[in-house]
Amino acid sequence: MLTIADKTFHSRLFTGTGKFGALAIMEEALLASGSELVTVALRRVDARAHKNGSEEDQLLKYLRHPRLHLLPNTSGVRNSREAVFAAELAREALGTNWLKLEIHPDPRWLMPDGVETLIAAEELVKRGFVVLPYIHADPVLCKRLEEVGVAAVMPLGSPIGSNKGLKTADFLEIIIAQSRVPVVVDAGIGAPSDAARAMEMGADAVLVNTAIAVSADPVKMAAAFRLAVESGRMAFEARLAPVATEAVASSPLTAFLD
Amino acid sequence: MLTIADKTFHSRLFTGTGKFGALAIMEEALLASGSELVTVALRRVDARAHKNGSEEDQLLKYLRHPRLHLLPNTSGVRNSREAVFAAELAREALGTNWLKLEIHPDPRWLMPDGVETLIAAEELVKRGFVVLPYIHADPVLCKRLEEVGVAAVMPLGSPIGSNKGLKTADFLEIIIAQSRVPVVVDAGIGAPSDAARAMEMGADAVLVNTAIAVSADPVKMAAAFRLAVESGRMAFEARLAPVATEAVASSPLTAFLD
Amino acid sequence: MLTIADKTFHSRLFTGTGKFGALAIMEEALLASGSELVTVALRRVDARAHKNGSEEDQLLKYLRHPRLHLLPNTSGVRNSREAVFAAELAREALGTNWLKLEIHPDPRWLMPDGVETLIAAEELVKRGFVVLPYIHADPVLCKRLEEVGVAAVMPLGSPIGSNKGLKTADFLEIIIAQSRVPVVVDAGIGAPSDAARAMEMGADAVLVNTAIAVSADPVKMAAAFRLAVESGRMAFEARLAPVATEAVASSPLTAFLD
Amino acid sequence: MLTIADKTFHSRLFTGTGKFGALAIMEEALLASGSELVTVALRRVDARAHKNGSEEDQLLKYLRHPRLHLLPNTSGVRNSREAVFAAELAREALGTNWLKLEIHPDPRWLMPDGVETLIAAEELVKRGFVVLPYIHADPVLCKRLEEVGVAAVMPLGSPIGSNKGLKTADFLEIIIAQSRVPVVVDAGIGAPSDAARAMEMGADAVLVNTAIAVSADPVKMAAAFRLAVESGRMAFEARLAPVATEAVASSPLTAFLD
Repeated sequence: MLTIADKTFHSRLFTGTGKFGALAIMEEALLASGSELVTVALRRVDARAHKNGSEEDQLLKYLRHPRLHLLPNTSGVRNSREAVFAAELAREALGTNWLKLEIHPDPRWLMPDGVETLIAAEELVKRGFVVLPYIHADPVLCKRLEEVGVAAVMPLGSPIGSNKGLKTADFLEIIIAQSRVPVVVDAGIGAPSDAARAMEMGADAVLVNTAIAVSADPVKMAAAFRLAVESGRMAFEARLAPVATEAVASSPLTAFLD
Repeated sequence: MLTIADKTFHSRLFTGTGKFGALAIMEEALLASGSELVTVALRRVDARAHKNGSEEDQLLKYLRHPRLHLLPNTSGVRNSREAVFAAELAREALGTNWLKLEIHPDPRWLMPDGVETLIAAEELVKRGFVVLPYIHADPVLCKRLEEVGVAAVMPLGSPIGSNKGLKTADFLEIIIAQSRVPVVVDAGIGAPSDAARAMEMGADAVLVNTAIAVSADPVKMAAAFRLAVESGRMAFEARLAPVATEAVASSPLTAFLD
Repeated sequence: MLTIADKTFHSRLFTGTGKFGALAIMEEALLASGSELVTVALRRVDARAHKNGSEEDQLLKYLRHPRLHLLPNTSGVRNSREAVFAAELAREALGTNWLKLEIHPDPRWLMPDGVETLIAAEELVKRGFVVLPYIHADPVLCKRLEEVGVAAVMPLGSPIGSNKGLKTADFLEIIIAQSRVPVVVDAGIGAPSDAARAMEMGADAVLVNTAIAVSADPVKMAAAFRLAVESGRMAFEARLAPVATEAVASSPLTAFLD
Repeated sequence: MLTIADKTFHSRLFTGTGKFGALAIMEEALLASGSELVTVALRRVDARAHKNGSEEDQLLKYLRHPRLHLLPNTSGVRNSREAVFAAELAREALGTNWLKLEIHPDPRWLMPDGVETLIAAEELVKRGFVVLPYIHADPVLCKRLEEVGVAAVMPLGSPIGSNKGLKTADFLEIIIAQSRVPVVVDAGIGAPSDAARAMEMGADAVLVNTAIAVSADPVKMAAAFRLAVESGRMAFEARLAPVATEAVASSPLTAFLD
């Protein structure tokens, strides 16, 4: 079981709500994933007040399940000031102080801004938020965020939406080795095998959205990720065999007819 | 469900019996893996006649489960002639015409000999064996083996016992794309994530031995591989999202405060 | 200096003549590469008899340089019989007993057929050819070819024309470690960095064609490969520093103000 | 030619002075490298005042060559305040306002602190320094450093001293694509092939220290890096051929005997 701040999770697979073809499919996929924490862009929720009955309004209805906790995110903000403002709106609108803090000033590459994230994180922790910052796989930044009191760190595996997998593995290893808060690998996980690998490395959880949402069969893919995350965690606990540089046969090799 | 020759398998995880610390652990791990096909070095079985009551004798007792089929292998033979001789012994000793054909003349690197394997495969098919050859990830060799009637091909992922994963992925893709017999990725799979990836690529099954046997907790690791193989197969069926070269956000990115 | 059979080479960069936009560009690029051995598809040369004055006829004129040795190849043959026939034609047409033996029965993936290659190599060695077989990076096949008397082995780095680099690196290492004849990495080298890496690993030479021919500036790219091959060889001789698993600063790290 | 601030460089290979077995070897290697910019830990230089005639004192003598410019670095400082102090000392001691700004608070992993680096960079630019910050391969941080006026950015390829090569390649590509100041890949380059690859990707220069200094033959290795950097730059200018997903033969493939 994974504990972050005041919540305990049976599932180490966190999910998102973007890019699904239909809300009913999204709901079914989220349930199939076994996920207990799902991130929602504040923008989609906030619109509710203005456009009653709209698609955005509907979103929350599909997310009302006893097991499912919401993790509002600040996607779309460009600096710490906007992030703090968005966080307060989210707390009010959704009645939760949990927050996925993401700040990416550049609309093309969507890379997170670590400096602004640190400033916002410090302020939001003071304001009573449970902050999970989405950041580059930068070991020093992760430590500094830990020092200002974030509840977990969410380093990226590769550029968001790229499905490229764990390109930052060498740095994730350092982050995992030195972190005192849970490490959730976010962004870039394109296949269950990527999720399994992150868990095998010792990540505490992974967040997957695009890879499930844009699959030809999101419900089946969600179930596949569920198994992969469980598998990777078990492998971490059972400890992987070391990678060998010379071949070692698993069957006896004394020549058969000798 | 996977069909090879006359048998149908619910599990796409094939296993082996080498390197386990104890036979009781081996048995428990094999059951936890859900595997229905387990490879056994003929040498260990053959010894039965000579050393009654010995460890080798015991091996088969631990493998007697209704769901578990035996796949004798020719590990230790150095050429096609020895392989055919060993195959006949295995058929007699174990009462099965299934055979994992492996010929590696070199005791250091344990690389399979494709030329001898092709010669032996052709002869063994004529003699009524169900032949599953362990070979280099060589697409042309796979086609030629298919042409002489093997039941499946078993290309290696990386050097045997190395746990290096799917180093041959670029060639496995070609083999999978063009094969008309099942493709079982064998050797080198060191972690559940490797097994999941092989399945995501469209492999029909994987064979795992060392990674389970030498883990600190073989039973848990076997269960982890079971989930990983199921996960990878589901992901293959649900189809993976393509790898993108530019970032695409999963959350809306119109600037938050615009 | 590299010696293969009766020839000694100052340059460890072998080149090819395919895919160039114009023969004059090809000539200039080959000279810029410093290469002393250039492979030519027999088909292009053989046409000479029939189409005097044709483009094919011209090819040889552009290759007449004192330093440049021709290495006819059997590209296009599908089995050992065709290969031997083609080799004899090449010897007659070009006046050289050197031969790059390549047999790929499948027009889509162009993977070499190791079994046919071994059969043809044995026959061609008997007939007095200096045989350099193009093959999969299969360590056992390389040893068997060595045993029948080939002058060098030419394992592929990745699928021909793919520019994917050294996907077979784990197997090339084994081949290099155990080979008693020169190892020439052929196919897949897409960038000078790939060529340098092959040389750093201890390959005796590399063969590059597509990456030079289809570059926007083949002459400059040829010069780049020349430097890369020299660089990689020097690095091999000077020995690379080992890859470390923990960071070690190159500058002193006692805290500055302590 | 590469221009950074007020200086123009013929060589795109920057070097360092750490870890060499002897100063005479270091000098010879630096000359063989063709490098025109060499980084020196301030700590080693600063000691001069106190320990006249010491090894540290000698260091500068070996670096006095008309072509060789010094780039003092702040290795050992733990925050922006210490960095600014160290920079002023360096300017005074070495008579140059060029500075490689590196701040790594953690002695084990030696990862740079991006937040402190940004603060220090802004201050040092104001004080008239030509600042080249060593940082994580974080695209947003690179842009922010560019905005405060650094002369170049120096993202890492992999953990310092690890010789692991360009593990951050996916992020270096983004940094190179969007940077308006020169990009110098620093740290982790373990082989000439890594340096060539960085240049092929479009990096403006690379900094290499450990890989040269700890080689069995630093002088030859320095020369190898020189060629690799030239090669990679030429390949970048000539443009690499694209990586193909299907094989394309470089020789004609119409069946030979048709």
